Amino acid sequence: MTGAPGPRWIAGVDIGGTNLVVGLVRSDGGGPVAVRTAPTRPEEGAAAAARRVAAMVRESAAAAGVRFPDDVAGIGAGAPGPMELDSGTVRETPNLGWRNVPLRELLVEAAGVPATLHNDADCAAYGEWRRGAGQGARCLVCLTLGTGIGGGIVLDGRVHQGVSGSAGEVGHTCVEMNGLLCGCGARGCVEAYASGPAIAARALDAGYCPESPQRVTAETVCRAAADGDRKAARVVADTGAILGVAVANLMHVLNPDVIVLAGGVARAGDLLFGPLRREVRRRAFASAEAACRIEPAAFPETAGVVGAAELFRSAQAAPA
Amino acid sequence: MTGAPGPRWIAGVDIGGTNLVVGLVRSDGGGPVAVRTAPTRPEEGAAAAARRVAAMVRESAAAAGVRFPDDVAGIGAGAPGPMELDSGTVRETPNLGWRNVPLRELLVEAAGVPATLHNDADCAAYGEWRRGAGQGARCLVCLTLGTGIGGGIVLDGRVHQGVSGSAGEVGHTCVEMNGLLCGCGARGCVEAYASGPAIAARALDAGYCPESPQRVTAETVCRAAADGDRKAARVVADTGAILGVAVANLMHVLNPDVIVLAGGVARAGDLLFGPLRREVRRRAFASAEAACRIEPAAFPETAGVVGAAELFRSAQAAPA
Repeated sequence: MTGAPGPRWIAGVDIGGTNLVVGLVRSDGGGPVAVRTAPTRPEEGAAAAARRVAAMVRESAAAAGVRFPDDVAGIGAGAPGPMELDSGTVRETPNLGWRNVPLRELLVEAAGVPATLHNDADCAAYGEWRRGAGQGARCLVCLTLGTGIGGGIVLDGRVHQGVSGSAGEVGHTCVEMNGLLCGCGARGCVEAYASGPAIAARALDAGYCPESPQRVTAETVCRAAADGDRKAARVVADTGAILGVAVANLMHVLNPDVIVLAGGVARAGDLLFGPLRREVRRRAFASAEAACRIEPAAFPETAGVVGAAELFRSAQAAPA
Repeated sequence: MTGAPGPRWIAGVDIGGTNLVVGLVRSDGGGPVAVRTAPTRPEEGAAAAARRVAAMVRESAAAAGVRFPDDVAGIGAGAPGPMELDSGTVRETPNLGWRNVPLRELLVEAAGVPATLHNDADCAAYGEWRRGAGQGARCLVCLTLGTGIGGGIVLDGRVHQGVSGSAGEVGHTCVEMNGLLCGCGARGCVEAYASGPAIAARALDAGYCPESPQRVTAETVCRAAADGDRKAARVVADTGAILGVAVANLMHVLNPDVIVLAGGVARAGDLLFGPLRREVRRRAFASAEAACRIEPAAFPETAGVVGAAELFRSAQAAPA
């Protein structure tokens, strides 16, 4: 790297099953600015989504007063599912319905700037490690709580992707071997209890009944719990305890110094984190528990955007 | 390192709750030779144990026709429990009853050669990675099945010890959050089902009754299962399935290329490994499962001896 000043911005992109999120990330710290969100509409295909991402990046740059492409080094993108990192190809994404799509190439063509592509949960973990709640951690695990439960691991400053790119899938670790059936086909996965839809289903099972007729979601359950609804509060507390079992398991295996919880549910605060920490204290070794901070994400909704941009930066700094 | 020929042997030592195991490990490959086993007698204290280890190392060298100390570079030792790696101090070992013992120093004094000290499960993992069933692995996890269930992780050729030295404690990961009570105080740990004593207890609960009056141990249960006892076979199969849950969890978190099972129970063969692999196939992602070999240890009883010696060698090659 030379000392010459390059573009100071990177566009971070999170390509989710439901939404596209785009924001501009500065090279010198801070969260994303000029964040734009739009439906992914995966059924229109990956090329159409890539074109929409490119338009959102331009829009975001215009809103932030950043010249595009002159002052934007490129696009760091994250997407769900296993992928070929070298070629930037999405192999299989149940949430998007795309198979063997050269997504990075499509982004480069649509936007006319360089791009990188990484797993979205890895992006979130890296974003929290580089700029968020896990700065300076030697070993960080980040859980992303949403429609599914994903996870990413950062070890000694590098994402631990595993030998076939699927490390960090904490959502499918089992906490109850004869427990609830998970979407993956196995029983007792954390996701079967603590994903957004699972929280809503458990609340309905527990007899939670919203005052006005509305669709019950994890968000409405968390809000009702905060407003004092006992049944909802019980479900949120149980969710915390179940996540605590998974977090204690991570402490036993990895003995990390930071575990970050990202995603909407992680904003439930003490109603969730209280029971979670209590369960961890019951299960983890005292020395491992003392050595580990458990934190809500600094960027609950945009850790993936920040991390995707930062992974672009690290790829520029040290090309493979 | 210079090209000058140094001592070609290292003494590997495994200091267990029950036994001391000592063997000589050559620098150019192969398992330990002139292996000696003796009771640990921890109640006599660490200094006495260290003196006995030194005597066993001399005995082992004499039996192998190796000059001591001239042709023995030093002692690589492993012991259970959390330890201060830098100072070689055992902090706390429930199995030995020693607290804050400068065990490495005691070994150096007793034997008059340099020594290193590492966690015993880490030694086993490193031994299997360096010379056993996991040679060449990028990411290896080794479970040691015994009185307790330990574990070690080798990532990119280095032991992942975690931030407070307690990574790899797979035995205390939970597979059934409201399950059997474990010695650690938590419910549903793998160890509560699949440790040696737990296997024996589950066999007795299941009505397994040995023909001749004898103490029921995991070993007698495994032998009876191999001899066709149905109740014993059922217990061994269930043990395999429960270990399979833990192994699938490791695949989800770490996505390793090799998982090694060491210790006596791992020698039960297909009666254990069949149900284990079936459970893994049910739970792990297909790509992660396809990328990972599950193997019995190459050194079921002496992986810790080999790995302790190899960790000594790696410390000599690259002093901290």
